Amino acid sequence: MKLYVVGIGPGEDCQLTGKAIMAIEESQLVVGYDVYIDLIKHLLPDKETLTTPMKREVDRCKLAVEAAIAGKKVAVISSGDAGIYGMAGLIYEVLAEYEATDIQVEVIPGITAASSAAAVLGAPLTHDFAVISLSDLLTPWEVIEKRLKLAAEAGFAICIYNPSSKKRSDYLKKACEIILSVADRDTPCGYVRNIGREGQTSKILTLGELVKEQVDMFTTVIIGNKNTRVINDRLVTSRGYKGI
Amino acid sequence: MKLYVVGIGPGEDCQLTGKAIMAIEESQLVVGYDVYIDLIKHLLPDKETLTTPMKREVDRCKLAVEAAIAGKKVAVISSGDAGIYGMAGLIYEVLAEYEATDIQVEVIPGITAASSAAAVLGAPLTHDFAVISLSDLLTPWEVIEKRLKLAAEAGFAICIYNPSSKKRSDYLKKACEIILSVADRDTPCGYVRNIGREGQTSKILTLGELVKEQVDMFTTVIIGNKNTRVINDRLVTSRGYKGI
Repeated sequence: MKLYVVGIGPGEDCQLTGKAIMAIEESQLVVGYDVYIDLIKHLLPDKETLTTPMKREVDRCKLAVEAAIAGKKVAVISSGDAGIYGMAGLIYEVLAEYEATDIQVEVIPGITAASSAAAVLGAPLTHDFAVISLSDLLTPWEVIEKRLKLAAEAGFAICIYNPSSKKRSDYLKKACEIILSVADRDTPCGYVRNIGREGQTSKILTLGELVKEQVDMFTTVIIGNKNTRVINDRLVTSRGYKGI
Repeated sequence: MKLYVVGIGPGEDCQLTGKAIMAIEESQLVVGYDVYIDLIKHLLPDKETLTTPMKREVDRCKLAVEAAIAGKKVAVISSGDAGIYGMAGLIYEVLAEYEATDIQVEVIPGITAASSAAAVLGAPLTHDFAVISLSDLLTPWEVIEKRLKLAAEAGFAICIYNPSSKKRSDYLKKACEIILSVADRDTPCGYVRNIGREGQTSKILTLGELVKEQVDMFTTVIIGNKNTRVINDRLVTSRGYKGI
């Protein structure tokens, strides 16, 4: 029996892959965080869905695995890529807790926020980069700080997921301060809010400006490196091609 | 006039997004490296195409920009995501060299190899990670070494693009040795060759084994971190959820 873990991309239908749509259509039960189920509900006419609120990820995976064991074709959905801060890992971990089953997990990748935010801003991730979440729900803040510092020292462009929440409204500021201990204030940066959804907005600014900026949890932030420039209002990291 | 820069994903049709297919269909001219044009040529019946060999990226972008200036709807394609080691940045750089034009570049993201390789191997990139190319055609090797070292020290899972070529057959070995100066020999790793294409193969192994492995340029490598385990023959990086 197949258990699909499907990345639905940023939100708009046209950014799902054909494979993701096929897996959802083929499934009898679609499981996900209620906001994401809402995003694709028009693709699910007469389809059984099962939603749980945020922070109930383990319950959601158990429900999905148990439905699959009971013989249903199940798709668990994540926004972006299910394999990048998504449900894919947890499904494998949860499944391992059940008696040997014949359930085959198939992860179907989607467009992750690093890709979709980069495309909106221009081309800031054309070369080596690091992806860091500022959420300290499951990761000690000291680990996040260390990663930010070393990523900046390494000269990576940095894509930041989960830059803020109600309880962590100053985390992006803290992150920028750490990066500023290594990088220039003029380093070009950008962020996108509600990527591929209604009310999408984006902004290009310097690291010195970003440290003072308030963003919310629906925002993805990209911090350039020494090879990043602003070209015609777009954030572009050069790979160094000669002869342009 | 629109100039699309389109990521076509790993190679199989079903991993293109609807937006990528629409942009290609809408274009009068499709420009790309000949191998990638071949991958999607059945999507291009009666469509004008323009290919250049590898290492002619600047020429390819100039041809695309000039065709767009001449009034054609053009799509430049990259495998994976056009914004990640793809053509998107170079298009912006090349376009800036021309007199002010009314050409609007739109980058349409695709599934990058980090996402597609992770999905084949399991879920190794569920938490913070770094993406590093071992190609030293445009990047000094010392920079690559530094990034590998700092990424390992930061505890990132690491996704390696361009791990090898005829001239650089020992680069993956060198990269593993650098990471081994920080990480354990038992660190779970994996690689995928020809992702989403005919003859796709994958392997899960330890970092101590990977250092002795010979891979080719069609391979994407993922090196786990301290939270990566092998679960039912899949590479899984735990995010640390409690109560599983």
